[in-house]
Amino acid sequence: MTKPRFKFFGWGREGEGMTPEEEDFAFRRLGERFGVERAAGLPAPRLEDIALRAPRITPPASLAPICATAPYDRAAHSYGKAYPDYLRALQGDFAPAPDVVAYPRNEADIAALLDWAGGEQAAVTPFGGGSSVVGGVEPRVDGHKAALTIDLREMGAVLEIDRSSRAARIQAGAYGPALEAALKPHGLTLRHFPQSFEYSTLGGWIATRSGGHFATLYTHIDDLVESLRTVTPKGVLESRRLPGSGAGPSPDRLMIGSEGILGIISEAWMRLQDRPRFRAGSAVRFRDFFAAARALRVISQSGLYPANCRILDPEEAWNTGAGDGTSAIMVLGFESADHPVEPWMSRALECCRDHGGEAETPAAEDAHREGAAGRWRNAFMRMPYTRERTIRCAIINDTFETAITWERFETLHDLVKAATEAAIRQATGRAGEVTCRFTHVYPDGPAPYFTFTVPGHHGRLLEQWQAIKSAGLDAVIAAGGTVTHHHAVGRHHRPWYDRQRPPLFGAALQAAKQALDPQGLLNPGVLIDPASAPPAG
Amino acid sequence: MTKPRFKFFGWGREGEGMTPEEEDFAFRRLGERFGVERAAGLPAPRLEDIALRAPRITPPASLAPICATAPYDRAAHSYGKAYPDYLRALQGDFAPAPDVVAYPRNEADIAALLDWAGGEQAAVTPFGGGSSVVGGVEPRVDGHKAALTIDLREMGAVLEIDRSSRAARIQAGAYGPALEAALKPHGLTLRHFPQSFEYSTLGGWIATRSGGHFATLYTHIDDLVESLRTVTPKGVLESRRLPGSGAGPSPDRLMIGSEGILGIISEAWMRLQDRPRFRAGSAVRFRDFFAAARALRVISQSGLYPANCRILDPEEAWNTGAGDGTSAIMVLGFESADHPVEPWMSRALECCRDHGGEAETPAAEDAHREGAAGRWRNAFMRMPYTRERTIRCAIINDTFETAITWERFETLHDLVKAATEAAIRQATGRAGEVTCRFTHVYPDGPAPYFTFTVPGHHGRLLEQWQAIKSAGLDAVIAAGGTVTHHHAVGRHHRPWYDRQRPPLFGAALQAAKQALDPQGLLNPGVLIDPASAPPAG
Repeated sequence: MTKPRFKFFGWGREGEGMTPEEEDFAFRRLGERFGVERAAGLPAPRLEDIALRAPRITPPASLAPICATAPYDRAAHSYGKAYPDYLRALQGDFAPAPDVVAYPRNEADIAALLDWAGGEQAAVTPFGGGSSVVGGVEPRVDGHKAALTIDLREMGAVLEIDRSSRAARIQAGAYGPALEAALKPHGLTLRHFPQSFEYSTLGGWIATRSGGHFATLYTHIDDLVESLRTVTPKGVLESRRLPGSGAGPSPDRLMIGSEGILGIISEAWMRLQDRPRFRAGSAVRFRDFFAAARALRVISQSGLYPANCRILDPEEAWNTGAGDGTSAIMVLGFESADHPVEPWMSRALECCRDHGGEAETPAAEDAHREGAAGRWRNAFMRMPYTRERTIRCAIINDTFETAITWERFETLHDLVKAATEAAIRQATGRAGEVTCRFTHVYPDGPAPYFTFTVPGHHGRLLEQWQAIKSAGLDAVIAAGGTVTHHHAVGRHHRPWYDRQRPPLFGAALQAAKQALDPQGLLNPGVLIDPASAPPAG
Repeated sequence: MTKPRFKFFGWGREGEGMTPEEEDFAFRRLGERFGVERAAGLPAPRLEDIALRAPRITPPASLAPICATAPYDRAAHSYGKAYPDYLRALQGDFAPAPDVVAYPRNEADIAALLDWAGGEQAAVTPFGGGSSVVGGVEPRVDGHKAALTIDLREMGAVLEIDRSSRAARIQAGAYGPALEAALKPHGLTLRHFPQSFEYSTLGGWIATRSGGHFATLYTHIDDLVESLRTVTPKGVLESRRLPGSGAGPSPDRLMIGSEGILGIISEAWMRLQDRPRFRAGSAVRFRDFFAAARALRVISQSGLYPANCRILDPEEAWNTGAGDGTSAIMVLGFESADHPVEPWMSRALECCRDHGGEAETPAAEDAHREGAAGRWRNAFMRMPYTRERTIRCAIINDTFETAITWERFETLHDLVKAATEAAIRQATGRAGEVTCRFTHVYPDGPAPYFTFTVPGHHGRLLEQWQAIKSAGLDAVIAAGGTVTHHHAVGRHHRPWYDRQRPPLFGAALQAAKQALDPQGLLNPGVLIDPASAPPAG
């Protein structure tokens, strides 16, 4: 079996990472901001140094060909890409490593694996690209006897394309680039580009309610799902391909965001779009972030539906090279496969001018590649490579995102920023940086995304990180936001999710899980507590 | 308590009905098509002739002020507005009448009513406007000892308006006109106009996944819900007001379409829109229905998002006076509160011309009120008054709707039409009429809506209707469609819903109901079978 050799520590494939230029840029910024000296820092962990317990279960002969117990496979499936994941890995702690990693080739394999896990009382962790930043793929045994991770990468094909309805049947293990490559010859695109695009999968996007790169309309994966197939311990659940329906609560919406606790999504019919031919884009400067937000509120309620309308606060713009730190930036873009978009763009720029926004350059067709917008976009896609490097130098750097209705946004912003800054000072004894951008906007509110950065202290990084992140999320929940707009809940967000989730919905979800996964094999402790101890014997 | 005096038989308020001109028009059409002579037909039922069993339960003193057992209240809550409802009422059969009708004033009243029902082992039917055409409000006792209907009409206020986020907190019992009247002074609109608008409620729309008048984008009620409060037998389930979220499966989406089996929706924060200021509209003629559908496919995938883009087949256009019966008609309209919509309209008309469509008149701002589009709209809103009149003359006339991806639409259309026509011939011994229009379109497919009409025979109407409708729905399900796009499942669509719904989703829904309504009080037999007999004693 040939598998791409992903790093067991860090982002992407082995051999990939920050370029020397990117490292220069990042450390220059850190130096200017915090006086941090560039240094090699702690060494990255080496596979040969990692001690893993002996596997507690052995696959039967029928499953052995799709199962692996090599140190590489187990180490590479111990963690996602969250800050504490990197931290523990850096310390050589791979305690969560699964006993066995399986790579099913089809639904029958998944069903057989679930049957085997049930017999062995093994907890099962579904695994897509492993890009979770919330502890969503970390195995936990809980009351079970072993941990089996099921990695869908061998199920990555585009199986069928319906050009007329613009839809495709795609296996859940398809990574972003492979999926888009298969659609491209047909002039189609899923047009779902999360930051993790290159190293995340369709099934992962659906299970975690992923948000795409685009800012309005059909961007949340929820709206792109036409139908689903999910393999549960009780059998396959398949919904009908329908553009819309009024027949009872949506079966798909129960599975979307279920984070692997109800079953393993095996394939989906996805709604596609024609590849854009017309574009207009610009970067617009605003005096401050709230002025940009007010302009964006008008645009989001205008019915213009830009493909892109992110705003960055001045510090965030500076950090990514998109601005000089004195003004907020709106990255604004329209796209269409059908018609020129100038009327849309000019009206949106009018809305910006009404709120003091100045377009950087005349709207240009290639603005999405050039200028501030282009610089920001490049920085955005390369960002995940930064953490594995800076963490070695004790930099604490993490993000969290939420969504909130417009009338509460400014209050939420100020509360979250103040609470996070105070926690940084208390945890590290120095001033840090908390920046904000919008990743998505809806007519009724934005999705603000916060980034915090501060130099911490080796040996205390986990507690320092936890104190800061907790303070930020406490403020998000207190201000009425959601604990996550598109990063999912996983294990790290559970305490805040529990405060946000209606208790009776928790009871209903618990009951639904009991019906589909009576042994509680799948991702125990994710989203909800195990219903009860697994049955004895 | 003053309550609007709705008809206990027929549509709307007492004293309302077809105008003499509308009656002339309808019977002229029926005469030309079927040779039906206009006649008085059977008399409408009279309240004083109806025999109702004595109520099997008596409200406690604390609830007596909000409960009614008068014959009018009980008769007016026996049925919805489905064809067999009218038929049974015409025959004086009011066997499903609830024992008691309650009109709660607040959530505490609802909770007290549910507690009382639990103690009495009474089945509970939530009731909005009672406009269900699928048996959704018909009480069934099943294993229970009595039937209590809870009518939300006293909870009809708009409680709070958030202008900035364009959202309002609205009680579930709000009827369409009252709700819009409360929003209008703020320049806002929910812009959700189902055909039943005047006589249906927000809670009913949400519980049944209603579709609005508008054809694309934010039209399905699912997308307009920002958050919900639902009173279940286990307590109140309230979700957060959020423009978007990625935190686990959506709690709202479990309640949307739950048709009263999980709880009684008491209020919702709803997403609103600015009232439109710019309009362009036209009616476009096409050689045939499929040519119109092909043009519409292109428009639906163009990103133009017209407010209206319904198509009517030639017979349907003729029936409503919108066309002469020789061509299919597309009713096309754009609206905006923000910007002139001419660029949108001209591109959509180009798409029509590419498929042989000829605009009836130059696109005009008042086309939504005048011309073929205006004639059709008026006919559409008045249509519900027709049935109570024509059924008395033994006319069988009903509708059903579905949704299907584009590539299967033509096949579905032909299969459904042929099956329904054959069933009409077999059931009545003569040729009937089956027409089709689209009510909504999505980028991946349309929502076709079928109407069938044929003169039947008094005394056999129920079996004739059932045979025809069953044949139509059999074909819908066989061709891959949904049993309903926006009429809901209720009791009449259950057999076909059961074929469409993934069995394991049924199990999950059953489990969720057990968690929220352990006694199975709410709408037993709607969507799912009762889990078990209600507890004894």
